[in-house]
Amino acid sequence: MARYRVLIDSEDEKGLVYKISKIFFEQNLNIISNNEFVDKVNNKFFMRTEVDGDINSDALKEKLQQILPSNANINIKLPNRKNVILMATKESHALGDILIRHFDGELEADIKCVISNYDTLKPLVEKFGIPFITVSHEGLSREEHEKRILDVLKGYDVDYIVLAKYMRILTSDFVKNYENKIINIHHSFLPAFIGANPYKQAYERGVKIIGATAHFVNDNLDEGPIIAQDITEVNHAYSWRDMQQIGRDVEKVVLSKALKLALEDRIFVYNNKTVIF
Amino acid sequence: MARYRVLIDSEDEKGLVYKISKIFFEQNLNIISNNEFVDKVNNKFFMRTEVDGDINSDALKEKLQQILPSNANINIKLPNRKNVILMATKESHALGDILIRHFDGELEADIKCVISNYDTLKPLVEKFGIPFITVSHEGLSREEHEKRILDVLKGYDVDYIVLAKYMRILTSDFVKNYENKIINIHHSFLPAFIGANPYKQAYERGVKIIGATAHFVNDNLDEGPIIAQDITEVNHAYSWRDMQQIGRDVEKVVLSKALKLALEDRIFVYNNKTVIF
Amino acid sequence: MARYRVLIDSEDEKGLVYKISKIFFEQNLNIISNNEFVDKVNNKFFMRTEVDGDINSDALKEKLQQILPSNANINIKLPNRKNVILMATKESHALGDILIRHFDGELEADIKCVISNYDTLKPLVEKFGIPFITVSHEGLSREEHEKRILDVLKGYDVDYIVLAKYMRILTSDFVKNYENKIINIHHSFLPAFIGANPYKQAYERGVKIIGATAHFVNDNLDEGPIIAQDITEVNHAYSWRDMQQIGRDVEKVVLSKALKLALEDRIFVYNNKTVIF
Amino acid sequence: MARYRVLIDSEDEKGLVYKISKIFFEQNLNIISNNEFVDKVNNKFFMRTEVDGDINSDALKEKLQQILPSNANINIKLPNRKNVILMATKESHALGDILIRHFDGELEADIKCVISNYDTLKPLVEKFGIPFITVSHEGLSREEHEKRILDVLKGYDVDYIVLAKYMRILTSDFVKNYENKIINIHHSFLPAFIGANPYKQAYERGVKIIGATAHFVNDNLDEGPIIAQDITEVNHAYSWRDMQQIGRDVEKVVLSKALKLALEDRIFVYNNKTVIF
Repeated sequence: MARYRVLIDSEDEKGLVYKISKIFFEQNLNIISNNEFVDKVNNKFFMRTEVDGDINSDALKEKLQQILPSNANINIKLPNRKNVILMATKESHALGDILIRHFDGELEADIKCVISNYDTLKPLVEKFGIPFITVSHEGLSREEHEKRILDVLKGYDVDYIVLAKYMRILTSDFVKNYENKIINIHHSFLPAFIGANPYKQAYERGVKIIGATAHFVNDNLDEGPIIAQDITEVNHAYSWRDMQQIGRDVEKVVLSKALKLALEDRIFVYNNKTVIF
Repeated sequence: MARYRVLIDSEDEKGLVYKISKIFFEQNLNIISNNEFVDKVNNKFFMRTEVDGDINSDALKEKLQQILPSNANINIKLPNRKNVILMATKESHALGDILIRHFDGELEADIKCVISNYDTLKPLVEKFGIPFITVSHEGLSREEHEKRILDVLKGYDVDYIVLAKYMRILTSDFVKNYENKIINIHHSFLPAFIGANPYKQAYERGVKIIGATAHFVNDNLDEGPIIAQDITEVNHAYSWRDMQQIGRDVEKVVLSKALKLALEDRIFVYNNKTVIF
Repeated sequence: MARYRVLIDSEDEKGLVYKISKIFFEQNLNIISNNEFVDKVNNKFFMRTEVDGDINSDALKEKLQQILPSNANINIKLPNRKNVILMATKESHALGDILIRHFDGELEADIKCVISNYDTLKPLVEKFGIPFITVSHEGLSREEHEKRILDVLKGYDVDYIVLAKYMRILTSDFVKNYENKIINIHHSFLPAFIGANPYKQAYERGVKIIGATAHFVNDNLDEGPIIAQDITEVNHAYSWRDMQQIGRDVEKVVLSKALKLALEDRIFVYNNKTVIF
Repeated sequence: MARYRVLIDSEDEKGLVYKISKIFFEQNLNIISNNEFVDKVNNKFFMRTEVDGDINSDALKEKLQQILPSNANINIKLPNRKNVILMATKESHALGDILIRHFDGELEADIKCVISNYDTLKPLVEKFGIPFITVSHEGLSREEHEKRILDVLKGYDVDYIVLAKYMRILTSDFVKNYENKIINIHHSFLPAFIGANPYKQAYERGVKIIGATAHFVNDNLDEGPIIAQDITEVNHAYSWRDMQQIGRDVEKVVLSKALKLALEDRIFVYNNKTVIF
């Protein structure tokens, strides 16, 4: 007996819940939790079910394939520890938050290493016994720098890459290797203040609320599917550095929240958006 | 063809989703939206499904009864306009918010009348062509006053009574006539500051956040099942009257939210708690 | 004895608080509340003080002028009822919220009339005994339409114009007549989703939080000084119409909040930003 | 030239701002920021001013004493690094958050040591080179246990003690040694759910929002002056352990926020409440 996550996304058609739950019933699986969503506009069906039972994954998948539309995606997973690589630059708050949670056993993840273009955070990371790999961008073209990072990444079986305030833009060529696998924290309430120095932009604009956005990085930076957002209030007395400081508390919580959703297989991506169960 | 809401709560047992969705499938119903929740601790199953189709309600209910545990509750409803009675005292913000929404056609409800122990709000209510009935408590015992209100209420087929800042305590005898049908707004973040003058209590305690709570009134005031809550920030510079003023914006939005959830048949009550879909 | 609001903004220089409070002291004024802010980056000083006392406004102003930099702005005001014109199109939530507050006596304002390009809201407005003036844009150029609105406005001594979901863009020529006097509610978390249909834009982008922004309209629509913002959470299950519906609760509260700040002389504008006390 | 914080609280009387700012002006001090608050109900005056200048603290204090009511409190401080002792039990989130901020240089504090009744967190704390002192309560009376903790504390010149999820109740005898110096995080939205297991209480009550409260510990646990609060939304699907998990993100941010306010001398305490600038 084990607890499996069954993840299905598919074209919608009548009777899907019935047909799927029939299979679960016939296989004598116990449904622990079940979430469905149908996007009527795009005729898409999403389902995440946790089941307890004695499963032959391959057999179950085959049965599901028989009753689902042919282009359906079916994933049957045991809650395993996923392999995560962190990337950062100089700020420690987002990285540190993940390191503490990891130390605490809160994350279903093994953090394989931290990659940075500076060695600023090395002393922090090494406290936790995690390899810290500096890949300096000094004197390198963007392509050459990314190639060196890719060389490091290839040494691991990567499930997710988390950009914990990694302050360099990644090229499309880089990210296409890891579609829906790179999670970034952008320090604004996207789509406001895309690009550099969002806190300075927010200060200049005189906003009364600032935010942070965790999203997958696909193609264009800051334009990938949004996973989680949160905000905090500011006022005229905040300098942009004050906004940056208070914004960090939002950034780290939002990024860790997004990472946990990913680790728990709660995110579906389509049409550059997310369905989150 | 019409859109029905099928509401089921029941003891949980294996295969319920399968058995229910099988009936929907065999009846050729199209599932528009579906929400389920299983409370594993109490072994309770809740389901709210919107289906399109050509339904014989009684026949469908009978089929569902055959496959559900014998003590299951099954409701099959067309989205109808429910009969709502508002009760208020002197403050206009919560009442006015509902009147505007009603005027706007936002609520699936007919507001049959407003009952008040004062006539302060009569000019406002009558603008909207809604009967305003003053039932003064002057010189009456609580029981006698409530009896007069009950006499008014008996003239209507009441679905919900909304206490839009009705500032008198209702007795158990009164509320037992309308179990899970009386929605109150309490001007604090329950269970903090139960009872009278919660803003004064909040001021005295020096809290940094105040809130409001919409809940069903069953037996003990302020202790019924919570439907919705929201908060707003305050600080040392707020007098209790300032808190009261800013709190009104939270109160009215929370109460209207709770009313809409009720009108859309989105609330299940059990164990003095709510499941909200 | 009366309570005055003394509003000062000025270049900053050493000793301003001392020099101003000296005058208050010598005039035997009692300070009820006092707020100051210095923008060090732009060397600007802002102060709002409520004082009780027996004041000759002109004499007090003259004394303040003598000790303040020559280009300082000094306003000494009794809390009077300001003249407000509302403009709306077809939606009633923001307009209705202001009407109820006005009816309730919550606003330091006389609502002189409501101007709309449709007559949809006439029945609502007239309930409250407020003149409703339809200025249709049918068959008119933008300039001609605005000229007709200006003709109406010229009949009043206008303190503030509130765009309570007035769905037409105002030209620069129009708004320059009312600098920092037109308050708009934009149904997004500006600067995200500038322009038309922000809820549709938000839906397409897949955001997890939506918001509303109240701002002064100067020159470019949606780019004026921000007064107040608030947000609410959404998720993948929200259609853009659901977002619109829930967004209305944020819009109306934010707009009314901004209006109250204006009526209480709590807003200073500079550099396209606001200082709010 | 240095930047000082001048903290004054006093009975209120007419002319205080004038008299104080006169002294600042005559001493040729430059006001960087200034906050005042007058509690009219209790006739109390509070002021926090940051000034740049060449100060003789004692002389300045003497001058202020001459013009202030005799029972006024006057503190003139350089922003120094305060001595902080952390106390914790087994949970790492709140402690870890402070450790990361400390490592990052975000806090004006030297963390002298961590005291715990278990050694669970020793590996985490020692990573950061901070002494970890286990004071087990096993087999000891409460008084004896506290005496041992006091013996440790006496070895330090303590400015603040932070209870970062220290799960034992401190006696009045203990806390009276550190009035307004012990900051606790209570894992509920006080005054709701005082006492043990607040998440379980919140779950049982069926609340829709949970919170956390940072407060000073004086006399009765959970009843001291509130410094900061924040909340997060929950729903029927949350078990109490889910609430506990998500609540941790609120707890740690609120506790760190309160600590920073204390370190920056932004908190005044009176009448079991706080004024926060």
